[in-house]
Order: sequence, then structure tokens, then C-alpha cells
Amino acid sequence: MKNYHKEDYPVADIRRFLEPGPVVLVSSTWKGESDVMTMAWHMLMEFTPSLLGCFISDANHSYEMIKRSMECVINLPTADMVDQVVAIGNCSGEDTDKFAAFGLTAQPAEQVGAPLIAECYANFECKLAQVAGNPKGGFFIFECVKAHVATSPKLPETLHYRGNGEFMVSGRTISRKSLMKPEMR
Amino acid sequence: MKNYHKEDYPVADIRRFLEPGPVVLVSSTWKGESDVMTMAWHMLMEFTPSLLGCFISDANHSYEMIKRSMECVINLPTADMVDQVVAIGNCSGEDTDKFAAFGLTAQPAEQVGAPLIAECYANFECKLAQVAGNPKGGFFIFECVKAHVATSPKLPETLHYRGNGEFMVSGRTISRKSLMKPEMR
Repeated sequence: MKNYHKEDYPVADIRRFLEPGPVVLVSSTWKGESDVMTMAWHMLMEFTPSLLGCFISDANHSYEMIKRSMECVINLPTADMVDQVVAIGNCSGEDTDKFAAFGLTAQPAEQVGAPLIAECYANFECKLAQVAGNPKGGFFIFECVKAHVATSPKLPETLHYRGNGEFMVSGRTISRKSLMKPEMR
Repeated sequence: MKNYHKEDYPVADIRRFLEPGPVVLVSSTWKGESDVMTMAWHMLMEFTPSLLGCFISDANHSYEMIKRSMECVINLPTADMVDQVVAIGNCSGEDTDKFAAFGLTAQPAEQVGAPLIAECYANFECKLAQVAGNPKGGFFIFECVKAHVATSPKLPETLHYRGNGEFMVSGRTISRKSLMKPEMR
């Protein structure tokens, strides 16, 4: 895993990293305990405020921690972390300290109690804006209040889940900036 | 653009194509008029029923058509269609017949009134399960009731939007099937 130098990043622009649909690691803290879960069911909802919609199953140990603390950090792992990502999804925070088990470094966030995962390319500090529960889990809307993004490389190689143990890795970039109307960018 | 041979695909398994986070084309029909819009703000919410959450701005001509007809088709374009995808996002159905303007073939769907786009790799027929409006647009939950997927190639090369006119193209596959617990796949 890598050590990144990260800088503040405008929260209105985090689509650059999240809109392509990567698997993320969600960290949370409640009553002195921290946990991490994998998440692929998320989408942007607004730029300003910077809103993210996420569906989290209540089968996750983190579910109640996120719901009660009303905060989390959305961390962006890179393709070289695929085995950590799988391992985190394969066990429960109920009986495993995932930070210790998988060599992840918890760093203090600035605006939330949940920790940043140092080894991830980017960390998005989030506060819960709205939650709509249902019997099998909940639809959470988070506001990203602070973003930390690595300065190099310019773009991360991210993991995108297909189910059945298969991940798509982000590929090449195509630019059509010159063809797009400014308001469509 | 390509001509695909498509077959029925299990609606519970459409995560394979949508969970990685591609840009999709949403087609709709209302009072004899059809329209298409680009959409990147979507996520899975459940396998059975097959639920998709989508955020659609009311700035889209399609917004009211989808809301009133309570149906749509989510079509999966491939990387070779990037210029059509940009062009569709750059204009409005209010004054443009996008099917005619961009050489798209509308095919009848089986369970909804909205058309399938023949040139896309996959077509997911959807019925509106729930909508929550807000001043700037709406959060829609669709149930996919019928899926048509190309039999070849095995995986499509999809477009993933980063904003600012830049698209990430889906890259290589990493499999960790052997490491995953069956219930985690």
C-alpha cells in the first residue's frame, strides 16, 4: 500500500473521483469503536451542497454506527488494495478490528469523529443529511464537508465491482471537453 | 455503432453491468413523444426485486415524461458511442428528436411504453417504484422488470463520467472469486 501526500480538494468537485462508480471504504466511529465497510451502492446527488446518496444494508456492523454517529468518512482505495478490499468485505466488525487486521492506518479527520484511512488515495469527510430506513437497510444522503485528495498520481486506478468476485479496474481517459457546452460539463 | 444480438438476462443479476457505474441513456415516452437523456447518477439498491436508485434533475426534458409515464428504459452505451452520448447530453428533447438527430433506432420494449435503443449493449426495462421530489429534481427508485443483454462481447467497454468533459473507459478485470465468501459475492 502507498503513502500519499494529500491536499484539500473542493467538495463541489469530488464527482471527478466518485461519479465513475468506484468501490469505496466507509469508516465510522461510535462509542470509541471504529469500523470499516466496503460500499459500491452510491451516487452523486448534488454539487453544492456536495451530496452523496448511499444504500447501506443493515447486515453491516457499520450500519448502526453510521446511523447513530450521523457521520462517516468515504475513503477511495486503489486497485493495488484489492485484497484488502475483499478481506474487509469478507469479515464483520462485530468480531474483527479491521484496521489492525488489514494494516490500515486510522488518521484523525477534521470535521467528523470517524477516521481517515491513510492508505487510500482520497478521503471524503461526510455528515448525514438525511436517512430513510426500510426493513433491509437504509438509504443515506451524506454531505461531504471536507475532501482530502492525493496530489500524485493525477488520477487513481480504482476498483469497480461487477459481483461474483469480479472487479473492473478503471481504464483510459477520453476527453470531449471541447465538444461540451460549459453547462453540461 | 454496432448491431447486437441480445437475449433475456436475469434482472437480479444486472449489477454486473450497472454496479461499476457507467453512464447510461434513459429513454422515455409520454403522449406519443419519445426522448433520451444521459444519466450518471444512479446506484443499485436491491437484487430482488431489482431496484435502481437514480437522481434526475428537473432541468431535463425527460424528467416530466418519466415522472408521468412512470416508466423508462435504461440503455447501456459503449465507449464507441462517446460522441452520441455527449451530443445527447448537449441538447434538449424540447426542440430535438434525439433518435433521428443521432441515428438511434427505437425498438419496442416488452413491458413498458418507452423504447429500447437498439445500438446499446444492454437495455433494462424499468417501472417506477417510488419517487421523492425536491425543488431541483427527484430521487427515483425504478424496478427493472426485463433485461436484454448482448451475447457478445462478454463484457462491454463502458463510459464513466468524471465531469469537465472527461470520461474514464472501463479497463481490465481482476477476479477474486476464490477468496470471497459465497454470501459476499
